[in-house]
Amino acid sequence: MALYEKKLEFDPVVERVWEARPEFLAISPHAEVPVLVEPDGTTLLDATAICEYLDEIQMEPPLLGFDPLTRAEVRRLVGWFDGCFGREVTDNLVGEKMLKRLYGHGGPDSRAIRAGYANIHRHMEYIGWLIEHRRCLAGDAFSMADITAAAHVSAIDYLGDVPWENHPAARDWYARIKSRPSFRTILGDHVPGMPPPKHYSDPDF
Amino acid sequence: MALYEKKLEFDPVVERVWEARPEFLAISPHAEVPVLVEPDGTTLLDATAICEYLDEIQMEPPLLGFDPLTRAEVRRLVGWFDGCFGREVTDNLVGEKMLKRLYGHGGPDSRAIRAGYANIHRHMEYIGWLIEHRRCLAGDAFSMADITAAAHVSAIDYLGDVPWENHPAARDWYARIKSRPSFRTILGDHVPGMPPPKHYSDPDF
Repeated sequence: MALYEKKLEFDPVVERVWEARPEFLAISPHAEVPVLVEPDGTTLLDATAICEYLDEIQMEPPLLGFDPLTRAEVRRLVGWFDGCFGREVTDNLVGEKMLKRLYGHGGPDSRAIRAGYANIHRHMEYIGWLIEHRRCLAGDAFSMADITAAAHVSAIDYLGDVPWENHPAARDWYARIKSRPSFRTILGDHVPGMPPPKHYSDPDF
Repeated sequence: MALYEKKLEFDPVVERVWEARPEFLAISPHAEVPVLVEPDGTTLLDATAICEYLDEIQMEPPLLGFDPLTRAEVRRLVGWFDGCFGREVTDNLVGEKMLKRLYGHGGPDSRAIRAGYANIHRHMEYIGWLIEHRRCLAGDAFSMADITAAAHVSAIDYLGDVPWENHPAARDWYARIKSRPSFRTILGDHVPGMPPPKHYSDPDF
């Protein structure tokens, strides 16, 4: 999404990380995605490090904000969604229902899934609270905070597990994200043999 | 450590996060440290966001590196130590042996502690591998990568749980960190009623 927003040309490559291909482990020793490979072969790892790098080599549009305080708020929220939201919601739902199967790590743990269903409400309320005070999550400008939150929310929405009916403010924010050209391409990606719910790529739900 | 390196004046305040003081929750709703409070009352949360902010408002000395690729490598390693190292080592040792007791979350889980003891070797080897290729962890200049790694390692070393004898290269790196003026003050901090091992604050081990 950051690459599309910055209008940087790139070739997206699907890496089946669970296959742990030796060629992939040579560039990402822990079989982690995303990896950015520059034309000269330089490789970059870690989503946050890659997005900060993209913001430094291609300033427009700025995705971290203009002044140091706004940038601190963007980075705090990126850390919040990749950290707390990830552990409490994404890992429990996407991790248990989808990744565990792909990695061949056995069946989903129903206790973890129940925890994910319980935790998601508090997090969607927080998104709603932020969006009632600001146009976008970290302030009035669209930023990496929106991208990071949308990445998590869309993975959960693909499973049909976001309780949108209870969280209208968060839903309005996500409808705006879904209507961005940078996101529409991404919403077209499907997991083979596992279609998303109908509303998944519909900007009007 | 970043504040000392930047020579920014500040008053360190100990917050007993496990007491969840209402006045503290008002500025850090999830009772998380560190919190930076600016003279005008502005509060900043999230260690990474705070350190990036400090690097923006006070450039000298730069703690993230000069060029975009070095900065990406610094940020990757900050993410690595706060993420993977934190989960696999620090949480299992400092979390189980010290924080659980302070939070009143019951006794330590011996299985987690054993996992921490097993995992730390791979991570100390990685530090050793980096330092055999570079003067500091992310390149030739001291950076936030060294600060982040040292923060984790020092907390574990306080418990006497770093197997230094098996990891001489990592030990040489850490001896250099311990001799920095910015770190010496920090090594003087003790947990009341829980003294660290003798070598803890000795730059020569």
